[in-house]
Amino acid sequence: MMDLRVELTKNPKEKPQGNLGFGKYFTDHMFVMDYSPENGWYNAAIVPFGPIEVSPACMCLHYGQEVFEGMKAYRNSEGGVQLFRPEENFKRLNVSNDRMCIPKFDEAFLLDALMKLVEIDQEWVPREEGASLYIRPFIIGTEPSLGAHSSTHFKFLIIMSPSGAYYETGLAPVKIYVETKYVRAVTGGTGFAKTAGNYAASMKAQDVAAEEGYSQVLWLDGVERKYVEEVGAMNVFFKLGDEIVTPALDGSILSGITRKSVVDILKSWGMNVQERMLSIDELVQAYKDGKLEEAWGTGTAAVISPIGELKYGDLVMEINQNQIGPISQKLYDTLTGIQWGKIEDTFGWVKKVD
Amino acid sequence: MMDLRVELTKNPKEKPQGNLGFGKYFTDHMFVMDYSPENGWYNAAIVPFGPIEVSPACMCLHYGQEVFEGMKAYRNSEGGVQLFRPEENFKRLNVSNDRMCIPKFDEAFLLDALMKLVEIDQEWVPREEGASLYIRPFIIGTEPSLGAHSSTHFKFLIIMSPSGAYYETGLAPVKIYVETKYVRAVTGGTGFAKTAGNYAASMKAQDVAAEEGYSQVLWLDGVERKYVEEVGAMNVFFKLGDEIVTPALDGSILSGITRKSVVDILKSWGMNVQERMLSIDELVQAYKDGKLEEAWGTGTAAVISPIGELKYGDLVMEINQNQIGPISQKLYDTLTGIQWGKIEDTFGWVKKVD
Repeated sequence: MMDLRVELTKNPKEKPQGNLGFGKYFTDHMFVMDYSPENGWYNAAIVPFGPIEVSPACMCLHYGQEVFEGMKAYRNSEGGVQLFRPEENFKRLNVSNDRMCIPKFDEAFLLDALMKLVEIDQEWVPREEGASLYIRPFIIGTEPSLGAHSSTHFKFLIIMSPSGAYYETGLAPVKIYVETKYVRAVTGGTGFAKTAGNYAASMKAQDVAAEEGYSQVLWLDGVERKYVEEVGAMNVFFKLGDEIVTPALDGSILSGITRKSVVDILKSWGMNVQERMLSIDELVQAYKDGKLEEAWGTGTAAVISPIGELKYGDLVMEINQNQIGPISQKLYDTLTGIQWGKIEDTFGWVKKVD
Repeated sequence: MMDLRVELTKNPKEKPQGNLGFGKYFTDHMFVMDYSPENGWYNAAIVPFGPIEVSPACMCLHYGQEVFEGMKAYRNSEGGVQLFRPEENFKRLNVSNDRMCIPKFDEAFLLDALMKLVEIDQEWVPREEGASLYIRPFIIGTEPSLGAHSSTHFKFLIIMSPSGAYYETGLAPVKIYVETKYVRAVTGGTGFAKTAGNYAASMKAQDVAAEEGYSQVLWLDGVERKYVEEVGAMNVFFKLGDEIVTPALDGSILSGITRKSVVDILKSWGMNVQERMLSIDELVQAYKDGKLEEAWGTGTAAVISPIGELKYGDLVMEINQNQIGPISQKLYDTLTGIQWGKIEDTFGWVKKVD
């Protein structure tokens, strides 16, 4: 296995106080690793966090060959630090790599390197209720050349940011509208990869939604503009009578780790959860029939984000009287309970840092 | 108008000799300008070319909020330097900005700044036949924060690269296959914007094509997988009997400046050129009827790229006996003649550098 060089900072930073926000402060160290055709992935190191120097011709600044992951380290009830299914993030990152022509990496090595990095910066894992250390592994194409082809050189980094509770005043339902103009991703495209361009493509719709007083948009498929895909940058679930539905992974939807965990938890509760195609028309009919009982987004940042209002054209659908539903609440409590070590992890999802 | 600070290099580089390739060498200077919510676009300067320092949390490394342009400066027959329709590039860049949530800039100021930059580095414009100075304006989101929303801060740069002739051994037809698995862009997406994610999304198909001995792929629309869109990163034209067809700009196709110029030239020749939807089935039928007489891509790098072979599934369509057709050749001679100042510019497209 590759060596991991460790260079500790000589100038530890002061830790931020008060409202941490999201992704604004960074810990004392970061992980870096390079790729060249001659060496493969090499030069792995934990070094002091700091700016990186790139050529202005660096390919990732022009052609977007960039993939990333997002996960968190949590302060558990014994005062220790733990991660939630980190191996799934590295597995998915290699799936993204394959789509985006980025060379695959050794997942076991990266997991070890990450555990070491978190261990070194463990004092940065917040102790405040609901706060956590957000972890961002990412890879960028670094060849300093303007030819519009896959980069020959890459850089892998992991940076970490102590971040505040997503819900400062408790779990709260959001207002969402169904996007009919803009498209996030399409079959044959990059929707299933966690890559830069998907997020850049989504910003316009997000800005328009914010101007109109909505938190996010519900994305429909790019072909028929009919099937539900994601909500904002989250996966989405609907409780339709006795069935809980989440869109099937058809190539344009990100395979969320929170999504996968929610499916497993619901199944463990004996609930009828289906991964299948779900059209907006079916959703509207369920609403009209009084069967649209709950809806929520799932993602690393929010964990569970209940949807209180869904607008489709002129139709405003209020869900569960704009209140958090019992399943949403129970899922939130269970997932966050496991993540922060407050309840027993019967799934084996938690990985403790020494 | 904004001030333009000029800081000349104290260490001029040696100019590269021999095969320049494309986008590998860079001139002595570059243009830089910043954006912040407080200042708008500010701090415009021509400075020595060199690496830039960014936070590893710099948003463009994660969410792909990046737009760019490509144009060339040419050494004309009097030994002077001239550009080809540069105002069109800045106009299009602002169109890309609008889609990608990047603040618009003053096109007249940028054009002046570019002319000054080219003037300063004019000795870098190659004198070899077919060689030129490739110019790359680009804008990146620079907020050092991981929230998945539009960046608050941006950087605008222009870098320039002396590049060799696209066709080292003269204009030559290429082999293309029709892509049926991967999709480049879709209506409602970002296809009409010159933005990073479109290029990242295209790389996989390009790599597969190269492995199979093809230069590029012909992209079909992402909805019906039926209508012709672009070829590689170029616009595409087909001569079908007496009609010359190029796909209409429907939102998923880049509005090429070479495309636009080719349409104008063909019209000036009294030819029947149509911007309309063109299905792959119509193309196949035209081939079978002996009416697919010529096909070519258009773009800044290649100018005109004749297509000699087009493969669709098992059907291999040879076009004009895999030879350059008379229209392709005449267009190439006319456009490059105007660009390099060898023939009269009756369109008013050329802008000379003092």
